[in-house]
Amino acid sequence: MPDLLTRLGIPHPIIQAPMAGVSTPALAAAVSEAGGLGSVAAGSAPAAALAQQIAEVRARTARPFNVNLFCHAQPAPDASGDAAWLDYLLPLFTEFGAEPPAALAEPYPSFADNDELLALLLDARPPVISFHFGLPPADTLAALRSTGAVLLASATTLAEARQVEAAGLDAVVAQGAEAGGHRGVFRPELGDAGLGTLPLTRLLVRTLRLPVVAAGGIMDGAGIAAVRRLGAAAAQLGTAFVVCPESAADAAYRARLLSPDQPPTVISSVISGRPARGFLTRLVREADAPGRAAVAAYPRAYEAARALIAAAQAQGAADVAVQWAGQGAPLARALPAAELVGALLAELAAAGG
Amino acid sequence: MPDLLTRLGIPHPIIQAPMAGVSTPALAAAVSEAGGLGSVAAGSAPAAALAQQIAEVRARTARPFNVNLFCHAQPAPDASGDAAWLDYLLPLFTEFGAEPPAALAEPYPSFADNDELLALLLDARPPVISFHFGLPPADTLAALRSTGAVLLASATTLAEARQVEAAGLDAVVAQGAEAGGHRGVFRPELGDAGLGTLPLTRLLVRTLRLPVVAAGGIMDGAGIAAVRRLGAAAAQLGTAFVVCPESAADAAYRARLLSPDQPPTVISSVISGRPARGFLTRLVREADAPGRAAVAAYPRAYEAARALIAAAQAQGAADVAVQWAGQGAPLARALPAAELVGALLAELAAAGG
Repeated sequence: MPDLLTRLGIPHPIIQAPMAGVSTPALAAAVSEAGGLGSVAAGSAPAAALAQQIAEVRARTARPFNVNLFCHAQPAPDASGDAAWLDYLLPLFTEFGAEPPAALAEPYPSFADNDELLALLLDARPPVISFHFGLPPADTLAALRSTGAVLLASATTLAEARQVEAAGLDAVVAQGAEAGGHRGVFRPELGDAGLGTLPLTRLLVRTLRLPVVAAGGIMDGAGIAAVRRLGAAAAQLGTAFVVCPESAADAAYRARLLSPDQPPTVISSVISGRPARGFLTRLVREADAPGRAAVAAYPRAYEAARALIAAAQAQGAADVAVQWAGQGAPLARALPAAELVGALLAELAAAGG
Repeated sequence: MPDLLTRLGIPHPIIQAPMAGVSTPALAAAVSEAGGLGSVAAGSAPAAALAQQIAEVRARTARPFNVNLFCHAQPAPDASGDAAWLDYLLPLFTEFGAEPPAALAEPYPSFADNDELLALLLDARPPVISFHFGLPPADTLAALRSTGAVLLASATTLAEARQVEAAGLDAVVAQGAEAGGHRGVFRPELGDAGLGTLPLTRLLVRTLRLPVVAAGGIMDGAGIAAVRRLGAAAAQLGTAFVVCPESAADAAYRARLLSPDQPPTVISSVISGRPARGFLTRLVREADAPGRAAVAAYPRAYEAARALIAAAQAQGAADVAVQWAGQGAPLARALPAAELVGALLAELAAAGG
């Protein structure tokens, strides 16, 4: 069996993490052109938008790239739970002169039950496909495998990683609790073990036969060298790429990542309904207060957060924002993606490869 | 300036974490004899007991060893808060046919204000001294430095590490959230950033001039090699040494560390009043329930937990227990300390040193 990098078709052990709302086709293409693996975050995209993104990547590079898909369990309707959450947020909406939405719609379907997106992928045939929040059904996996795609999935525990291995995927992304963005936990209602990148990576490498990609808290070549010593085949970096000019991050988000006075990062569910790590913005501080109501189900809660953010920012409350970031955020540096990959590789070599 | 290992007088970059209640003079001496740095956990010991432990280490080895001291802020008396905590625990005491203590005494003083312990150390002159929960006053540090001792302190954030550097210590122990036992957080009432070992170590190495020792989630030589790639001068391992025959861990605790069905580890304050990571035992599960009362101040809460554990275990409830463990616990292996150090060194060399 060729090693994972060979199968992925990349010379360097660097994967740009998919980041819905932040990553762009230009970022993915730049990383792939530099010899890493760029990722398109299809998590929340309608099929037509995803087709467009894949086409844009291909227009910029002939190298392999990854398309990431959200495989969350579709939540049952819960009008009264949604109403309770909106009611809880009412004082914040009122403060910003707005009314909460009357109800929360489903903003996007899970890939676990999405024939339209599956048909698109079978047609577009991206070279690498990765899953977050769980796995799609076996017949979907088989169909995607028949395209020749290399398949990856996130795991936050050994039990999840065993499911990934049992489903026959090509590698598992060990997502440590340090990572920015959504925790890949399959069933968050059962809790979150919160394993750090170091012990999670080592536990999976020692226990599984499957290649392991380490993610969470890695910001430079020394970090990549470290996880390779743990036995990881590659490192996945997200926060490090947010400040690249190719990303879609807004100015306030970039400024915070580069500020010496940045707030801490925290894991909270109040933005989307699933736990995710980001800067402790005013939105998280005020919405995730002691005694808060139960957050509406993922991804419906996102609708409420988006409406609140729009109202607040229209009033100049810039810190009512979503700014996903991992614990390595203080080490972010503003370089174009190709230069960042070059710096990572030079540092990796300096740390012994 | 000689490097940290030279100053510590040890050939290998391995420190056995001090573990109050678990580590023993025999364990410390075995690790030091094998070329690492053994540690005596004086955290909760009266001066006479500490003198005895230091003498026992010296009877077993002429090599350097470390004495660890707790530097928590002494809590104000709070009879009503203590009573509320004991009242909250009443159903558990009742279940085990016992009554809670009438009040909670101070079980032990902080080293930050402990003339008796200071006098002992100035006399016993251990070669290495480390601090947890904060730093002692400057005059105490100066007095200890005058003995020639190498001084270390734990930090869980960059801000704490800057304090350690500013106080003139010789190295900082970057304690990641994966680590078992008490979090070294200086002021837990302000919250816990929960930084993982990987980003915390890298952030301190990149920011400070002070040598960094990495701690948390490291269980084998690959883990040591990883943190060395992050720039750590040495690795501190605790959980890996708990199952050594030289430790004071009881049979149930050892069995759990070696079991494939071990429960997860969690950080909770209900045992001692300060956050600490250990197995999710029945004690933690039942005492750290939603809506619980505010835990009595550290270390008074420990008195309540000890009384409850004694009552429960007398009734055969073995899982009402304190079993500190880090997130690397599934990788524990039962080897004598000298053999474990030998295995760590062989693995470290295999991983590139």
